[in-house]
Amino acid sequence: MELSEIRKEIDAIDAQLLPLFIRRMDCAKKVAEVKRRDGTPVFNLEREQEILNRIAAQAGEYGGAARIVYNTIMSESRALQHTLLGAGSRLRTRIAAAPEAPRRTAAIACLGGKGSYSHDVVSQLYPQAVPSFFSRFGDIFRCVEQGEADLAVIPVENSSAGSVSEVYGLLMQYCFSIIAAKTLGVHHCLANRTGKFEDIRCVRSKDIALMQCSQRLAALQVPLSDSSSTSAAAELAARDAGVAAVCSESAAKAHGLHILERDIQNTDNNATRFVVISKELCIPRTAEKISLCFNVPHTTGSLNAVLSRFAAAGMNLTKIESRPIAGKTFEYDFYLDFTGNVHDPKVLELLCSLEDELPRFHFLGNYCECK
Amino acid sequence: MELSEIRKEIDAIDAQLLPLFIRRMDCAKKVAEVKRRDGTPVFNLEREQEILNRIAAQAGEYGGAARIVYNTIMSESRALQHTLLGAGSRLRTRIAAAPEAPRRTAAIACLGGKGSYSHDVVSQLYPQAVPSFFSRFGDIFRCVEQGEADLAVIPVENSSAGSVSEVYGLLMQYCFSIIAAKTLGVHHCLANRTGKFEDIRCVRSKDIALMQCSQRLAALQVPLSDSSSTSAAAELAARDAGVAAVCSESAAKAHGLHILERDIQNTDNNATRFVVISKELCIPRTAEKISLCFNVPHTTGSLNAVLSRFAAAGMNLTKIESRPIAGKTFEYDFYLDFTGNVHDPKVLELLCSLEDELPRFHFLGNYCECK
Repeated sequence: MELSEIRKEIDAIDAQLLPLFIRRMDCAKKVAEVKRRDGTPVFNLEREQEILNRIAAQAGEYGGAARIVYNTIMSESRALQHTLLGAGSRLRTRIAAAPEAPRRTAAIACLGGKGSYSHDVVSQLYPQAVPSFFSRFGDIFRCVEQGEADLAVIPVENSSAGSVSEVYGLLMQYCFSIIAAKTLGVHHCLANRTGKFEDIRCVRSKDIALMQCSQRLAALQVPLSDSSSTSAAAELAARDAGVAAVCSESAAKAHGLHILERDIQNTDNNATRFVVISKELCIPRTAEKISLCFNVPHTTGSLNAVLSRFAAAGMNLTKIESRPIAGKTFEYDFYLDFTGNVHDPKVLELLCSLEDELPRFHFLGNYCECK
Repeated sequence: MELSEIRKEIDAIDAQLLPLFIRRMDCAKKVAEVKRRDGTPVFNLEREQEILNRIAAQAGEYGGAARIVYNTIMSESRALQHTLLGAGSRLRTRIAAAPEAPRRTAAIACLGGKGSYSHDVVSQLYPQAVPSFFSRFGDIFRCVEQGEADLAVIPVENSSAGSVSEVYGLLMQYCFSIIAAKTLGVHHCLANRTGKFEDIRCVRSKDIALMQCSQRLAALQVPLSDSSSTSAAAELAARDAGVAAVCSESAAKAHGLHILERDIQNTDNNATRFVVISKELCIPRTAEKISLCFNVPHTTGSLNAVLSRFAAAGMNLTKIESRPIAGKTFEYDFYLDFTGNVHDPKVLELLCSLEDELPRFHFLGNYCECK
């Protein structure tokens, strides 16, 4: 037998299969009408599990495969029903009411100190703003909540460690939104007070920064020592001529240091992602990225069913991360980023149907990744 | 119309749909035979995209849904073909050759210092071992590579920040395996030299530990100050009666401190996960967790297609995390944990077919989560 013959057979099967799928989706429409009339909820776990078990049993050796194909079909039926029943009206209203830009951007809370990487981001995105510095996320959120700051800039993710789940937790607790994001490449400098290599007796920096520059630093053959932050290291270097700091160019300048060498990190692939958070949801017209947090019912394939909805809507995920929920074995929060704009009807429908369907669903914002 | 009538119609459609699906899977079997004979590769991106585009166009308003259902069907066909063609023979051989336990467990490299949380894990899992301490992951891997340590214990994930991607990178670079894991709840103590609260002039610890205990520490009304690690803070407290440290019970004991108060962290939900790594793959008979790293072709729904294979095999994911690949926009590595044992034929088949199919696929180990 030749491949072309088998493919003809497959095409013939598909020609029968597809009309059946379309009829099945038409049935989902009718179900939605009945559910609207009777006020029945869309999701019926028992009925779905019953179908899946029957199908899996009938499919014999292909049981696992049949189960997952049907899981996908039923997830799409459900999505259609949610859409027809006008799901997610609360989210729809919130999005429709969102302005394009924050009303005020004068006072900005940020993590770290003068010359920190967060400070750099503030200067680039809001050059006119006055930053106030904090060392704890909780204090930053309180400050924005009380209106002492209009916005805040915080690091949420870097390429050597994952997302800061504390930030996601606080976003949900305070119902704040992400209104912009910026990824900053890590560019560490070696800097000291005198500008002379021969004065270096010791190099100080935050542990992770020392690690990121380990190759260049090993060649210096001097002791390394941890400090609480890169800007704190710059401060120490300003006081002691024997100390060189690994820090940002801004931190070196802020503390009057001479830069001995730039870009001393091992690779150019380290980057930290910062987000701008706001009390009020703002959605720029050109927003291109959407962030969500949700959890899914604890059944095999449930995450898969949700992700298939993104794929069906043609959305590309740019991030997914699971986090165990405290005290609950085998239950997880998922953080998801994908490309899209809520003014695209397909995107809005997807979000609205998921808001109705998932036990916990948070729309965290639709924003631009700033260059 | 009543719900029961529509459901009857759905059941009637399913009764026709399932046999077609089964015939389509039978065709996949025949394709595998031809491909074996002719040495053709299983995956044919062009043919798959052609089918998907045709199906989506024919399905009209259900185009997105049809595309994702077909994506799932074709992914299952491919899995079947890989299995029939004896995929993943390299991985199969490696797994078959793996002993149940490491040959030597006397010398163990670990992150941090005496009394660190990593040290606690070493003491609990390998009470007879002599730990050697390192401050950088790279040094630990080198030490194991050169045979100076039999195993190493390193933290890879905590509940307030994600996975340490550096560790995953090193595991792949060195071809090491994870042979055990242990999650340690964070239990911070407040400790000083004198055992008297009134002597505390300042509290020191690693920044993240201070943050985790912010509520209790605020009530003390003394300044807080960062140090490079919790065990370094304990060392400082041992030298200065005015300094109290936030550290583990072991660190307090190791430095002769009195414990003023136990469990001062804000919540009991903070935990750090440690893994034991080995140069040689070992798989305990009772192994229950599998770790993988892979990436997927860059097409919409490709991650979804891979995850559907886990669901089809009845596997439950316990973790998923995406990480951008340096220098490649929209390409990601995925870290995945799921429950299972490679001696279960379904699990082995799944892994072997994915190894053949995915551009990059690393089996990182099958191990126990130690209590």
